[in-house]
Amino acid sequence: MTIHVTVWNENVHETLGTPASIASDYPEGIHGAIAAGLRKYLDDDAVIRTATLQDPEHGLTHAVLDETDVLLWWGHKAHGEVSDEIVERVRQRVLSGMGLLVLHSGHFSKIFKQLMGTTCSLKWRNDGERELVWTVAPSHEIASGIPHPINIPHQEMYGEFFDVPAPDEVVFISSFEGGEVFRSGVTYQRGAGRIFYFSPGDQDYPVYHQDEIQRVLANGVRWAVPKVEAALPAVTNPARDWFLESTES
Amino acid sequence: MTIHVTVWNENVHETLGTPASIASDYPEGIHGAIAAGLRKYLDDDAVIRTATLQDPEHGLTHAVLDETDVLLWWGHKAHGEVSDEIVERVRQRVLSGMGLLVLHSGHFSKIFKQLMGTTCSLKWRNDGERELVWTVAPSHEIASGIPHPINIPHQEMYGEFFDVPAPDEVVFISSFEGGEVFRSGVTYQRGAGRIFYFSPGDQDYPVYHQDEIQRVLANGVRWAVPKVEAALPAVTNPARDWFLESTES
Amino acid sequence: MTIHVTVWNENVHETLGTPASIASDYPEGIHGAIAAGLRKYLDDDAVIRTATLQDPEHGLTHAVLDETDVLLWWGHKAHGEVSDEIVERVRQRVLSGMGLLVLHSGHFSKIFKQLMGTTCSLKWRNDGERELVWTVAPSHEIASGIPHPINIPHQEMYGEFFDVPAPDEVVFISSFEGGEVFRSGVTYQRGAGRIFYFSPGDQDYPVYHQDEIQRVLANGVRWAVPKVEAALPAVTNPARDWFLESTES
Amino acid sequence: MTIHVTVWNENVHETLGTPASIASDYPEGIHGAIAAGLRKYLDDDAVIRTATLQDPEHGLTHAVLDETDVLLWWGHKAHGEVSDEIVERVRQRVLSGMGLLVLHSGHFSKIFKQLMGTTCSLKWRNDGERELVWTVAPSHEIASGIPHPINIPHQEMYGEFFDVPAPDEVVFISSFEGGEVFRSGVTYQRGAGRIFYFSPGDQDYPVYHQDEIQRVLANGVRWAVPKVEAALPAVTNPARDWFLESTES
Repeated sequence: MTIHVTVWNENVHETLGTPASIASDYPEGIHGAIAAGLRKYLDDDAVIRTATLQDPEHGLTHAVLDETDVLLWWGHKAHGEVSDEIVERVRQRVLSGMGLLVLHSGHFSKIFKQLMGTTCSLKWRNDGERELVWTVAPSHEIASGIPHPINIPHQEMYGEFFDVPAPDEVVFISSFEGGEVFRSGVTYQRGAGRIFYFSPGDQDYPVYHQDEIQRVLANGVRWAVPKVEAALPAVTNPARDWFLESTES
Repeated sequence: MTIHVTVWNENVHETLGTPASIASDYPEGIHGAIAAGLRKYLDDDAVIRTATLQDPEHGLTHAVLDETDVLLWWGHKAHGEVSDEIVERVRQRVLSGMGLLVLHSGHFSKIFKQLMGTTCSLKWRNDGERELVWTVAPSHEIASGIPHPINIPHQEMYGEFFDVPAPDEVVFISSFEGGEVFRSGVTYQRGAGRIFYFSPGDQDYPVYHQDEIQRVLANGVRWAVPKVEAALPAVTNPARDWFLESTES
Repeated sequence: MTIHVTVWNENVHETLGTPASIASDYPEGIHGAIAAGLRKYLDDDAVIRTATLQDPEHGLTHAVLDETDVLLWWGHKAHGEVSDEIVERVRQRVLSGMGLLVLHSGHFSKIFKQLMGTTCSLKWRNDGERELVWTVAPSHEIASGIPHPINIPHQEMYGEFFDVPAPDEVVFISSFEGGEVFRSGVTYQRGAGRIFYFSPGDQDYPVYHQDEIQRVLANGVRWAVPKVEAALPAVTNPARDWFLESTES
Repeated sequence: MTIHVTVWNENVHETLGTPASIASDYPEGIHGAIAAGLRKYLDDDAVIRTATLQDPEHGLTHAVLDETDVLLWWGHKAHGEVSDEIVERVRQRVLSGMGLLVLHSGHFSKIFKQLMGTTCSLKWRNDGERELVWTVAPSHEIASGIPHPINIPHQEMYGEFFDVPAPDEVVFISSFEGGEVFRSGVTYQRGAGRIFYFSPGDQDYPVYHQDEIQRVLANGVRWAVPKVEAALPAVTNPARDWFLESTES
């Protein structure tokens, strides 16, 4: 089955050129780097496109979403500039079965906060600390082929308490040089859709070029692809014994 | 410790007198019946007040919420008339530690949908069917003293699929005469707050006068009382080794 | 990837000819019917074998288990006759990554009780009641293509409380004509292995010939296939900074 | 309600005098230190006794267990010397509602392994590293009054992968100076009983004298006290409509 992926990035750090290092770290943008990593590890027939805040309808038209099995979301500085209408459109798609990977500072995106219902707040410190990413769900497909631990030489610290619902599955827990810990890879099912939040990756560090991180994202995409024919869960008012005639699928 | 409870009801069926039976089933309103049930089963020093949609600020002023450990929410016809500002105020309180019991058709209230992130849709049929409520978490305090099953002679059917996040705990599962099933008692922790959704209870049936239902609600209130000193989870940006000086509590 | 499946059956009802109907309901044995159902819905290259209590080492030699991705387990009358050594052998395999489907009265098998740690007790009544199997995890691959509900005309009743650990995922909940409910399709991950318990299916009823049941079992097998290279989780005593040299995979 | 607690210790390090420091660190034995900590933080009327491997029936007679609401378990060198009969007796009590706190190296005790069903293996290194214990479930009563993080100056390292079932609740996650992480405070409900595993505490370090650790254990005891009238879950074979006559409680 061909997987259709859309990598969304606010693309603001890149446009502004801040930090200065982003031009060399991410010459194709963070979305470009993420897309390139997916191309390495997904099957050859995967269709991977990118979309950004600056595109018409942020690049997330009905036509694009119709052809998207899994959407990846990277945002940081411009969460407030994302249109509420587009956010609701994406949310309906997720609840209808589209997979969603929310990356790093996307924890504060409108789409993630609305799907979680919580503040999604956390501790942070940008001090170039080593992050170690430990697998705590070794039978999970997202952990397939991933070293234990992943060693990220320099990364922003994200620390607990991370105000999200208790995850359906905790796949990865990170520690940082300064001693903080973070549930860095967690899954949720909402409606008919699958959500994977993964924290490693930042505009200041070339983390998305790291091989193991690319593998995690490709595994996450494969896991998040809809496994069922699905639709938005709906209210129905069936008569007694309706299921003797037919059933839902 | 004295428990402070606020029972909120939209109070619209009562005002309109629909169904006609509500005048005799709930002469003090649904909120009045729920409050009376809590008075039977909570400690004598519990402080139980009621509030309705028609009150100024829907009766949910900052002053009232400051004195509320647990809020119960009943709504059905008038979800859309609840002010977004009040809903956000309540949500912040829940994330800060206030307990919340969402009852029956409150599954479609703004506050519940925003805390869940999903459509909260379900099947329903108002045919006066028998509902049996089975305990599937026998060590849970909400199940304390509750018969297995509770037999509700006549009740509206709520059936799966119920589009909510996988609960932290499934305490009760119901079956209905027509064969449908429903996760009728489920818990969630969101931020520092505890949420219990319990479906039995309807404007058409005197379910809130049933002894076992009153016990469940009293147990639910006790469970939802904040167990910790809490505040809204916040973003912080601590320096390295900040915890050597002090810690958070 | 070729899936290797072993269907294990105690094969005692068949041998004894009790109930009398089993000769016509399951002429190839319950294991034969289950295997035939899997052949319909798994890929053509799946390798499906059967094994029974009466075989040397119950048919579960090291050689057989070495070639088994997923083991299905049906037992009822002869749990006590299964060798402790073989049970421990199977348990080690599951913890090392082999998938396990435990069926119906297998809830009382040694292997399931040891993996769960609980009594695994439940209510039962053999009265030929209609069972309706409702999906409560619509994004789960085990629910793919499964009608909502499955209608099983006649089946033994299994009712709550089912004394198992809170499942990692509740996929199906059943109701019975008599009003009882049962968490009839539940998943667990133990060590590196995946376990799916599915209750429909009995020596007295031809349930394993029902199309939807066969689909569920095939979906369950696909879900339980190991998704990672795995080994039995082991104790290790690594030196500081061991992960700078190498990591585990 | 008066809480009855039994603190069990294998009491072997103390008897052998290894490590030499144990005589000064734990002059009353590890069980004595734990009991003293509980006396500080539980209500005055709590009844706290101790029992050891060397006592008749390991101090866990039917009479003692009859009077025990919560049992704490510390073992390390002598897991194999604990009688299988006593282990099964304790397991039946837990499934019948008795609370159980399993401490540190108790992860490898017979009772914990049988209740979990997994290997319970982990990484370890005894290098006197700093352990930081972070709260990830701030609304949980076990976290009440506990600083975030707890700073333990010197402690044995326990690291992931910790081969236990996905916990019902992850309350604490630890990091160690060397970079490893560990789910150090986790809860399970099994049968009618509540289980809390808490890893900090070792024969080589005076951790059980640390105020915050004592508070966690006292909170854990309060959480694990049975909240319902309970009995061992049993198999029953009820007739149709049995619940019209009476119900279970």
